[in-house]
Amino acid sequence: MLETFPNPRPGRPYLVESVTDEFTCVCPRTGQPDFATLAIRYVPGERCVELKSLKLWLQGFRNEGHFHEDVVNRILDTLVEHLDPVWMEVEGAFARRGGIETTVTAAHGRRPQGV
Amino acid sequence: MLETFPNPRPGRPYLVESVTDEFTCVCPRTGQPDFATLAIRYVPGERCVELKSLKLWLQGFRNEGHFHEDVVNRILDTLVEHLDPVWMEVEGAFARRGGIETTVTAAHGRRPQGV
Amino acid sequence: MLETFPNPRPGRPYLVESVTDEFTCVCPRTGQPDFATLAIRYVPGERCVELKSLKLWLQGFRNEGHFHEDVVNRILDTLVEHLDPVWMEVEGAFARRGGIETTVTAAHGRRPQGV
Amino acid sequence: MLETFPNPRPGRPYLVESVTDEFTCVCPRTGQPDFATLAIRYVPGERCVELKSLKLWLQGFRNEGHFHEDVVNRILDTLVEHLDPVWMEVEGAFARRGGIETTVTAAHGRRPQGV
Amino acid sequence: MLETFPNPRPGRPYLVESVTDEFTCVCPRTGQPDFATLAIRYVPGERCVELKSLKLWLQGFRNEGHFHEDVVNRILDTLVEHLDPVWMEVEGAFARRGGIETTVTAAHGRRPQGV
Amino acid sequence: MLETFPNPRPGRPYLVESVTDEFTCVCPRTGQPDFATLAIRYVPGERCVELKSLKLWLQGFRNEGHFHEDVVNRILDTLVEHLDPVWMEVEGAFARRGGIETTVTAAHGRRPQGV
Amino acid sequence: MLETFPNPRPGRPYLVESVTDEFTCVCPRTGQPDFATLAIRYVPGERCVELKSLKLWLQGFRNEGHFHEDVVNRILDTLVEHLDPVWMEVEGAFARRGGIETTVTAAHGRRPQGV
Amino acid sequence: MLETFPNPRPGRPYLVESVTDEFTCVCPRTGQPDFATLAIRYVPGERCVELKSLKLWLQGFRNEGHFHEDVVNRILDTLVEHLDPVWMEVEGAFARRGGIETTVTAAHGRRPQGV
Amino acid sequence: MLETFPNPRPGRPYLVESVTDEFTCVCPRTGQPDFATLAIRYVPGERCVELKSLKLWLQGFRNEGHFHEDVVNRILDTLVEHLDPVWMEVEGAFARRGGIETTVTAAHGRRPQGV
Amino acid sequence: MLETFPNPRPGRPYLVESVTDEFTCVCPRTGQPDFATLAIRYVPGERCVELKSLKLWLQGFRNEGHFHEDVVNRILDTLVEHLDPVWMEVEGAFARRGGIETTVTAAHGRRPQGV
Repeated sequence: MLETFPNPRPGRPYLVESVTDEFTCVCPRTGQPDFATLAIRYVPGERCVELKSLKLWLQGFRNEGHFHEDVVNRILDTLVEHLDPVWMEVEGAFARRGGIETTVTAAHGRRPQGV
Repeated sequence: MLETFPNPRPGRPYLVESVTDEFTCVCPRTGQPDFATLAIRYVPGERCVELKSLKLWLQGFRNEGHFHEDVVNRILDTLVEHLDPVWMEVEGAFARRGGIETTVTAAHGRRPQGV
Repeated sequence: MLETFPNPRPGRPYLVESVTDEFTCVCPRTGQPDFATLAIRYVPGERCVELKSLKLWLQGFRNEGHFHEDVVNRILDTLVEHLDPVWMEVEGAFARRGGIETTVTAAHGRRPQGV
Repeated sequence: MLETFPNPRPGRPYLVESVTDEFTCVCPRTGQPDFATLAIRYVPGERCVELKSLKLWLQGFRNEGHFHEDVVNRILDTLVEHLDPVWMEVEGAFARRGGIETTVTAAHGRRPQGV
Repeated sequence: MLETFPNPRPGRPYLVESVTDEFTCVCPRTGQPDFATLAIRYVPGERCVELKSLKLWLQGFRNEGHFHEDVVNRILDTLVEHLDPVWMEVEGAFARRGGIETTVTAAHGRRPQGV
Repeated sequence: MLETFPNPRPGRPYLVESVTDEFTCVCPRTGQPDFATLAIRYVPGERCVELKSLKLWLQGFRNEGHFHEDVVNRILDTLVEHLDPVWMEVEGAFARRGGIETTVTAAHGRRPQGV
Repeated sequence: MLETFPNPRPGRPYLVESVTDEFTCVCPRTGQPDFATLAIRYVPGERCVELKSLKLWLQGFRNEGHFHEDVVNRILDTLVEHLDPVWMEVEGAFARRGGIETTVTAAHGRRPQGV
Repeated sequence: MLETFPNPRPGRPYLVESVTDEFTCVCPRTGQPDFATLAIRYVPGERCVELKSLKLWLQGFRNEGHFHEDVVNRILDTLVEHLDPVWMEVEGAFARRGGIETTVTAAHGRRPQGV
Repeated sequence: MLETFPNPRPGRPYLVESVTDEFTCVCPRTGQPDFATLAIRYVPGERCVELKSLKLWLQGFRNEGHFHEDVVNRILDTLVEHLDPVWMEVEGAFARRGGIETTVTAAHGRRPQGV
Repeated sequence: MLETFPNPRPGRPYLVESVTDEFTCVCPRTGQPDFATLAIRYVPGERCVELKSLKLWLQGFRNEGHFHEDVVNRILDTLVEHLDPVWMEVEGAFARRGGIETTVTAAHGRRPQGV
């Protein structure tokens, strides 16, 4: 479902950051909805992710049950598999539950110096 | 009372941050309530902390008397004991008393590079 | 427990507003703590409330169980009884539970024009 | 599904405001999710709405298709039917689509003076 | 080009507000682009404006030359013609030129009480 | 020096607001520079003020000495003379001197209802 | 000590607002310093207050003991006596003590319409 | 079209940053306008860019179709060609589409230490 | 006058930060009051500073005359003498005088890595 | 015109930062005023700059024509000449012209570690 396109400037390490506050999935214990602000940052390798397909793919989590720590790592793993980036980081800042706000951040590869 | 669960992605050093502005304990000198915003940040080792049990455990400080410097180090020590994290930091930002706001920050272990 | 003192300027309708973000009580259903920002606004009649006694009296709710709608009206009723103000308003903005923030505002008497 | 309880202070016109930024439904044209911050303000009549049941009822819109103008009026109508409030206002601030943020606000009854 | 649809709740005076910070036209004197945040607020009569057609219609100003005072009144006039609202207000906040930020606000009809 | 142009919509009472934070003049006592944010709000009569000429005219105060209360009323008087507006307000918020920020606001005519 | 000068535009009701966050006096009970942001707003009558003398006069409260409700009314009374304004309001927002922020606002005369 | 002038202090590595929130181009797929805040940061070599010509050159993208990743790298390449800077970075923060905000950042050369 | 107590966790390098916006002293040239926000940050050695005594000691500067650069270094020297910390930093951000805000920051010792 | 005084703590590398948003000069091309926020940061050597003389000296640029890149480097050069600091940085953030805000930052010497 995720579409990609060739990196228009493959020789240069540059940064792409996409942020959405419209991510929602379901708590696997209680079945109640969770909400998060999701940030995806990467230095493209051969390919970039097409934004409309990214949006639709993220919407697919809407009715799935996932723990916070799990869903962030899972999004990272799938994007890495499709894009093979030089470096990628996924950060999920989940809305307050029981008075606690939890943010999970995972990365793949090594961020190039100066990027 | 603190429950833990197995780290779903043990091979990757990633960051979990939980923040609450609903921490309260009691001043051991005056018996009057103190309020703080508490941030717990860690790179999980074998286990993660379950959030509901974290909330209930933190509520247990409500009527206990503790100095600022002491309670932050004590929370860190107990969490480290239960989770054995790669790295953990606890920051307590206490509400203004006598015109002064005090923040205490303590850490355990070495934060991995790039996390 | 609430102390009062004579209004230093009884002939003039003027406004006193006291706000605290350190109000906490307990949910009567679940026994878990609730947190609120409480604002008390009044036009004094014969007497003003002494602030230190107000603080101590509000601390007395710490371990009592009260519904949001109830505790705001109860604080208003007690303060009105002790101060007999020209006008008084109590607003309690309770911390988010289940993704919902609830504010209850109750008033006594008629706010004088131009105050 | 909406539960109510008796107004603890029926003789006094006071204000209750509940706000959530976790409301989501589906666009009836495109099938894609919409997100909104929803504010419900009312002066209770004989009954108040119980917050946990309000949360669960609002979650029920999650996979339903509704136009912005329609869903706000519909929420107002249903709450009015269950609570028969002195006055009620529902405001839905919907997340940006095509560069436009749209807010719909509808009310029932007449807001009492000084509330 | 502007599409409308029937007001889903014609018997109730309620408010619709649409705001975009992506409005741009051209200065008729210098030919250089102007940028504005545009807010459209109205109480619908028989019909509401469809948001996608509103977006596309506003994009049509992109390469047209208009004075600030003129374009705001013109947008109001056209929307009133298509929607025949009970009340409508258009506010254009134009980006700083020569150190001056200018906002033009025009309205049609009388805003109903309590809306 | 102030240029005007015919009001493009003379039959409708609408609001024009121009704000600049680049106003500066000189203190008549000490000879040192004063800085202010100046807001000019008006409902046009027969004519509107051209913005570039407004900017240049306001620059003319740069090396003149004026008291705060005086310069705001003087700007209002001159603009009223050139534009004969239905209503006009001039607000000057002067930068902090001796720890005090002073704002002077003067108006001419009666602001039409609903504008 | 307060100096005044003739109102440069006595025929027009306009607003002067002076705000300082450098007001400090002493608590008459504990002898410890209190801090406040003080706002003085007035519509001048025959005379305006000179700002440097206002600053110096306010500095005179530095080592005096005053209750919040008292000092605000006292500043208002003295300024009214020196300026005989059409309308004047004094607002003192005192720094948090015991978790409570208190604001006292008093006025003299009737604020003219449209000012 | 881009004009340059000689660096007035060629012996010292210093930073120039120009930011505009008035950048707009067109989506090459849908033909609809995109909006971005563009930041250009550089350490000048022999020449600096003249700001008015920079503004006019950036306006030239207004009706051109470009992908986000492409236009940022293209602006960087052209500026590098004209200025031959010691270091340059271009950052484009594009307005939200489908609930996602995307920022692309590309750099040329190595930022000198301490700048 | 400064009281200290034994560091409750002497084996761990952790951070204590105390901030007050209620610091005031007197300008030694003009005799007029100065206001500052003061931040004290340190990694405790054998002893921590007791907060109430810190507050009272800082109040002692209220009527003393000090230059900005001098008073910050002096506070640092005295605290270092009493606490012998691993590292300490004092930052004084002084309120605007003559349109200029000045901040002085001085440190003692070497901040441990990772704190 | 710039006055200096002996560094009161010459043995310690500490930071002094002075910021003013009241800097203005004239564009050498158009003759129109430019406005900037100017920050001067330095680690003093043998001498510190006296603030009142700094203010008066900066006021001297008021009616002089300077390019942005030039005036920042010129201020740095003159201050370095008078103070011979260990390290100094001058940052000028100029007000928006043609929709572009430009900031120029230049430094002299090497900032000491830990300051």
